[in-house]
Amino acid sequence: MADLARRLAVARGDELADVVVDGGRVFSVFTREWLECDVAIVDGYVAGLGEYAGKEVVHANGKYVVPGFIDAHMHLESSKLLVDEFARLVLPFGTTAVVADPHEIANVLGTDGVHWLADLCTDLPLDVFFMASSCVPASEFESPRRALSPGDLEGLLRRRRVIGLAEMMNFPGVISGDPKELAKLALRSSHVDGHAPGVLGKELQAYAAAGIRSDHEVSSVEEGRERLRAGMWLLIRESSAARNLHDLLPLAEEFGPGRIAFCTDDRDPEHIAEEGHVNSMVREAVAFGIPVEDALVMACFNAAQWHGLRDFGAVAPGYVADLLLLDDLEQFMPATVLKRGRAVEEIPRPEVPDWVKHTVRIQPVANNDFQIEWKGGGKARVIGLVEGQIVTEALEEEPLVEEGLAVADPARDLAKIAVVERHLGTGRIGLGFVRGFGLERGAMASTIAHDAHNIVVVGVDDGDMARAVQRLAEIGGGLVVIADRGVQAELPLPVAGLLSDAPLAEVVQASQACVAAAEALGCKIAAPFQILSFLALSVIPKLKITDRGLVDVDRFELVPLGAS
Amino acid sequence: MADLARRLAVARGDELADVVVDGGRVFSVFTREWLECDVAIVDGYVAGLGEYAGKEVVHANGKYVVPGFIDAHMHLESSKLLVDEFARLVLPFGTTAVVADPHEIANVLGTDGVHWLADLCTDLPLDVFFMASSCVPASEFESPRRALSPGDLEGLLRRRRVIGLAEMMNFPGVISGDPKELAKLALRSSHVDGHAPGVLGKELQAYAAAGIRSDHEVSSVEEGRERLRAGMWLLIRESSAARNLHDLLPLAEEFGPGRIAFCTDDRDPEHIAEEGHVNSMVREAVAFGIPVEDALVMACFNAAQWHGLRDFGAVAPGYVADLLLLDDLEQFMPATVLKRGRAVEEIPRPEVPDWVKHTVRIQPVANNDFQIEWKGGGKARVIGLVEGQIVTEALEEEPLVEEGLAVADPARDLAKIAVVERHLGTGRIGLGFVRGFGLERGAMASTIAHDAHNIVVVGVDDGDMARAVQRLAEIGGGLVVIADRGVQAELPLPVAGLLSDAPLAEVVQASQACVAAAEALGCKIAAPFQILSFLALSVIPKLKITDRGLVDVDRFELVPLGAS
Repeated sequence: MADLARRLAVARGDELADVVVDGGRVFSVFTREWLECDVAIVDGYVAGLGEYAGKEVVHANGKYVVPGFIDAHMHLESSKLLVDEFARLVLPFGTTAVVADPHEIANVLGTDGVHWLADLCTDLPLDVFFMASSCVPASEFESPRRALSPGDLEGLLRRRRVIGLAEMMNFPGVISGDPKELAKLALRSSHVDGHAPGVLGKELQAYAAAGIRSDHEVSSVEEGRERLRAGMWLLIRESSAARNLHDLLPLAEEFGPGRIAFCTDDRDPEHIAEEGHVNSMVREAVAFGIPVEDALVMACFNAAQWHGLRDFGAVAPGYVADLLLLDDLEQFMPATVLKRGRAVEEIPRPEVPDWVKHTVRIQPVANNDFQIEWKGGGKARVIGLVEGQIVTEALEEEPLVEEGLAVADPARDLAKIAVVERHLGTGRIGLGFVRGFGLERGAMASTIAHDAHNIVVVGVDDGDMARAVQRLAEIGGGLVVIADRGVQAELPLPVAGLLSDAPLAEVVQASQACVAAAEALGCKIAAPFQILSFLALSVIPKLKITDRGLVDVDRFELVPLGAS
Repeated sequence: MADLARRLAVARGDELADVVVDGGRVFSVFTREWLECDVAIVDGYVAGLGEYAGKEVVHANGKYVVPGFIDAHMHLESSKLLVDEFARLVLPFGTTAVVADPHEIANVLGTDGVHWLADLCTDLPLDVFFMASSCVPASEFESPRRALSPGDLEGLLRRRRVIGLAEMMNFPGVISGDPKELAKLALRSSHVDGHAPGVLGKELQAYAAAGIRSDHEVSSVEEGRERLRAGMWLLIRESSAARNLHDLLPLAEEFGPGRIAFCTDDRDPEHIAEEGHVNSMVREAVAFGIPVEDALVMACFNAAQWHGLRDFGAVAPGYVADLLLLDDLEQFMPATVLKRGRAVEEIPRPEVPDWVKHTVRIQPVANNDFQIEWKGGGKARVIGLVEGQIVTEALEEEPLVEEGLAVADPARDLAKIAVVERHLGTGRIGLGFVRGFGLERGAMASTIAHDAHNIVVVGVDDGDMARAVQRLAEIGGGLVVIADRGVQAELPLPVAGLLSDAPLAEVVQASQACVAAAEALGCKIAAPFQILSFLALSVIPKLKITDRGLVDVDRFELVPLGAS
């Protein structure tokens, strides 16, 4: 109350503001005007717009003053960085708040991991809000360390800054009325993010009727239009592996930006470092032809609106003073970022406790663990990559058979893929084929393997596949590229097998080295490890693989390798 | 959960809907399209839009299907009807939900009265949401039966359907940082309605900085524009005494309807019976030139948005099935009203307990209680009515003096006005003058006297004024018109002195008789009792009167009758 009294005194002009931003053109998300006025800031909040005096003055000199950008849906873990380093990375691009689903860490470390991650965010100059991870595991076909129960979610939802239920990825379960999924929705019906790739028609009506009112898995105008009509927010995603922005911007033109926000979902650190973060979506939207004001509203206020973050996303009295000063309305690269009214100072590095490391526990693996016996001929199911998408095709091909074994066939771009359970050391391995990587030799593997984050490995040589898995166990998780039994490149991710505790530059360098090494083995797709990591995600159509085997996502069941 | 499972089964098309509305053009508040599709309804909720079959079918035959209208801010008591009768009145006009501030009943009957009123609403086919009355009394210059403390508010806020803090009418207190007002804001910072007539500039910034994000007291485009820029919702009001719609619709044209909703605030029963309710605002907005889709969105979805009523205001899966079928897009008089998917059936009449009646307790009054001693000459402060507004002017006039007493002077349209405390029988009376009624003889009085609802009486004859007050005590409150000591017309309002327990027709007839009787005494303004009732409201500029005397609202202090 003392804070509020002080804020009002500053607003009235009776006390000096802590900081005044003067001489700027201030964007109103409410009226879409550019207001020529000062912004008075006290205790990290905007006190008033008008003519004000302050103890400190930031001279905007005609710059554009806009709200900090808000990422409406993302996974911190995709940056492969600890959150302090993530904050160092994205704040200069103008992202001042994110809404994170911590389901990667939750799959590996349970609710303990989520609380550890949330604790790390407490004092950051980046507001991190969490959604309670609703689907750990993403489906019954995946094997996390442990499943989160409705009770686990209830506990998470009581934590400050946990604002709702994260993406309900088990959309087949929701639509069919699975009591386990409905029990989760009953926990907190007020705010639930969706995830319903490709769902249309009556299935979509059912998904929306369950009270799920957003979706970020939209890749076509038709899907987007149906969701908007069904009352769902469209969270347009531009992740490293799924770039939906250009395809969906026509919806902002057709219906206005009112029910659309921007999100990055899963963005690689090198992608962020090169292209930026939410600001890159604003830049591309404006280049596409979206009015600047519409693009900005989608990048800040609308994300806050959808998530009920009532004090975020606007430069107006009573709002958190997250402000960007922009030189122009084309690049959206802030000249100045004020987080809660202050320039961002040095962010301390946190201690990382031992218990979040040492998470890779496997049985010893050898060549023959990756052999596929093939008797009687016939076609095999093959996961078919789709360029620039995380959905896959379900192909069928006659495998190359040698000595009763179905083997990789680089000539036809048919590699082997395997998922090795790595939380409990059960020795469970799922085996299959994939087309699209273009691998000519060797293997590549990752402990980032959505969502259960077992080890996913793709290769054309069983020995290299085994070596890749062994190597990841040795370094406590990460990415690795193997050829001729030797490590070509690797990125250690010792924190849960998901995150590095190294600075951005090291991570990006090692990550790029891994991509380059994969290219040297013939891999010809962009962001190959991103793509690889989603091949284990059993809730994205059409054909995926887990440690339990191949999953036909449309039928939502395990299917045998043989295509009958 | 069983309900949700059934809703999903209907959405999927696996079970028959309870009701299907087929063949309509369904308005999407999200895309502003008119969708040609069926609406499937189950358990009072929309299950899906598409092609559906149901146990019952309502054939829309090309009619327009729109969400039920929502009144964003109103006082049930202004209808002078018990809420069951209010529901009977407004449902045919398409109002299916209201957000009510019960501060009239709270001034007379405290939180007990609010709970009684809320209980009455429980089973109504009208969704009544309440805001906890933040300002009982409206200011320290008013005398309700008892003041509501922050603790009282805390209790109310825990009640289901109490969704926030009602209009913070003590805007001078908020702006100045009065700890008593800030303590109320600290109770529930998330949702607070505003009330800040005429406040502009830094004062408005302070009011908004307190977290108050709506205002319905706006009467000019300039005021409205400032509020929108400050992040406040504009609740455009069209009450009986304050008609702001036409003046403010240009703001919907200038900035779009995104942050604007409609409200009736205080609407007389005869006003509703003659012109309609929220639907009249849609009709007038469309006639004014506002696009139909914009007018509709302001009348339903936006009110729900502002108040966080997430399942109201749209025809979409998961939303409450409040639907109107319209023949045209000009009259907005529903051909059919479906409340939670059903036609409205007979609404039972409630029992009214004794304790909510018998609320008028006064000392005996006589002619000399209304005498104003006037020594030494000089001007008197005079309340000046402003046509069609509830704000007043602060005038100064030489009173007519007879035998040392300042008396009414009908020739110059100077009547006497008094407010008599009526809750505790203290005998406290505030006296003053008013210009604008045009009374030539007699007196008129009311126990509806915002917000403390003491007795307000205006007249040109002290004896008739005394008789009017006595008569109201005899009938337990209401409206009365007196001439030559005789009752010319009266409307008994025995419930708290605010509400009738009679049917609409009787209330309207008696109310109209009162207005006609006032006209016969020379009164020449529209809605004279509405205007009269607001002359005691000490938070509407400029000059008002309570049982404690004249209030200069701009200076926010009691002022003497003599203009110095």
